[in-house]
Amino acid sequence: MKVAALSGGVGGAKLALGLDRALPSGGLTLIANTGDDFRFHGLPVSPDIDTLIYTLAGLNDEARGWGLAGETWGFMGALGTLGGEAWFNLGDRDLAMHVLRRQALDAGRSLSALTESIRTQLNIRARILPMSDMPTPTVVDTVEHGPIPFQRYFVERQAAPTVTGFVFEGIAEAAPAPGVLDALAAADVIVVCPSNPFISIEPILEVPGIRQALRQASAPVIAISPIVAGEAIKGPTAKMFRELGFTPSPAAVAERYRDFLDIMIVDEQDAAAEPAVQALGVETRLAQTVMRTLDDKIRLARTVLDLAAV
Amino acid sequence: MKVAALSGGVGGAKLALGLDRALPSGGLTLIANTGDDFRFHGLPVSPDIDTLIYTLAGLNDEARGWGLAGETWGFMGALGTLGGEAWFNLGDRDLAMHVLRRQALDAGRSLSALTESIRTQLNIRARILPMSDMPTPTVVDTVEHGPIPFQRYFVERQAAPTVTGFVFEGIAEAAPAPGVLDALAAADVIVVCPSNPFISIEPILEVPGIRQALRQASAPVIAISPIVAGEAIKGPTAKMFRELGFTPSPAAVAERYRDFLDIMIVDEQDAAAEPAVQALGVETRLAQTVMRTLDDKIRLARTVLDLAAV
Repeated sequence: MKVAALSGGVGGAKLALGLDRALPSGGLTLIANTGDDFRFHGLPVSPDIDTLIYTLAGLNDEARGWGLAGETWGFMGALGTLGGEAWFNLGDRDLAMHVLRRQALDAGRSLSALTESIRTQLNIRARILPMSDMPTPTVVDTVEHGPIPFQRYFVERQAAPTVTGFVFEGIAEAAPAPGVLDALAAADVIVVCPSNPFISIEPILEVPGIRQALRQASAPVIAISPIVAGEAIKGPTAKMFRELGFTPSPAAVAERYRDFLDIMIVDEQDAAAEPAVQALGVETRLAQTVMRTLDDKIRLARTVLDLAAV
Repeated sequence: MKVAALSGGVGGAKLALGLDRALPSGGLTLIANTGDDFRFHGLPVSPDIDTLIYTLAGLNDEARGWGLAGETWGFMGALGTLGGEAWFNLGDRDLAMHVLRRQALDAGRSLSALTESIRTQLNIRARILPMSDMPTPTVVDTVEHGPIPFQRYFVERQAAPTVTGFVFEGIAEAAPAPGVLDALAAADVIVVCPSNPFISIEPILEVPGIRQALRQASAPVIAISPIVAGEAIKGPTAKMFRELGFTPSPAAVAERYRDFLDIMIVDEQDAAAEPAVQALGVETRLAQTVMRTLDDKIRLARTVLDLAAV
């Protein structure tokens, strides 16, 4: 079975790990959001790709929820001493990724080519594709500060400003990275991970050709609701829904995907939310979607794969 | 009293610290070798400037003899994991300097402008000037490997290859950094630190205009012999003399500087070596030149300053 999964953030990486462990080698292609990508002191950071790499290689810090296990922070300390901007946190070990990425990009290699060599080097089985090799930085429109770059919103201001919308700069001119459309066309099932719709999944969907590929896919498209009991497991998803005038719910998520979505997996706690999703023409299945342990991740992945195999 | 000192390596930084502590603020200008500069994974490293900065700011690792105190090595470990070249050692804290330097150079700032902001940020009293803002990388000609870049010789091969000569690439087209010729012209004494003549001092002298400025200076030029009892305190200086066909001695050093040198300070252990230096038309003074403690450094600095004040 060939699986293509759209992923961003920590929720995406959790299910990606479950899918990777549940599938034979070569079965999984992950399409990662790159709207969060930015440069910190000139170093190109790709948070969603790196979270996938670190998680699938078993190098991630499970307790902190992001970055590398055993990370140290000498670089950030020295940066402060030298008077450099220190509002973003780059760990010492994590820096190796960004330095190598800068070097590769400077040498004319693509983000996808570099990502492929890193995942091979780390013996990661799943293919990891950036949604695009072209930068399409997410800008968050806010009430308090107007439009601000995503990481300034997310890290520097800790997602506190009130959101009024999002712009993915340059996305109309972007192209899917090599392999993305082929992976969607060849997939037996397309998974939309329980990631933030606004800032993780919709940047991917807006890359010209990708949303169309999902609409036209013969394979079932299955999403897992990132909203459970009216809140997100992590991050500002529910807050964003409210600020944009929606009640956070599985149906509010399904509404954004309804043009291509076949099945939404809704958490067991949200059985009452199923009819609103079904009213959009989207089938529902209940499952335990909160992924705390590796077993949780593999079990949810198997639920997705079983649905597709029916 | 205004002092200009030519410096490279750890020996240079030791005397620079002594001069800085012995002089009132604003009295000292250090002219640093940049022939050792190179890029590691795209990051511009300026070892001799950094050694001066860390030493004068009190951030250096006294015991190891190079780099920062409290340094950690997570970056290098992760670089290895990711398959990056790891033959050079960049500490996590040290990385902040190179990342900021890359960012400044990319933004069109000069090495000297960046160095000036860093030394101001760290409250370093002495001015630190690169010999030139233009890269003039040292290439070491070797018997075993032909010409190899300096850090490949010095760090990767630990100075083991047999040296036949040196090339400072692009030096004929380089210009002294802003302030260098002025500092030499305004100095009441010019000091040549006990640094390696071949790879620390001669790159500085070969920048067009600098050797000429030393020859024409009305101020006395005073060098401290880096050779004590036939050996160097640290590094391959004596080995290089031998490989190039000279017996390492104060006179062999003075011979290389005789066109501008007025006085050479020779270590107390080398009283027998004084006549050979004097035969070159260079005055000599005996002093304790081995600098172990801060007091040693200040005492040697005072010896230099007293000589100049006579």
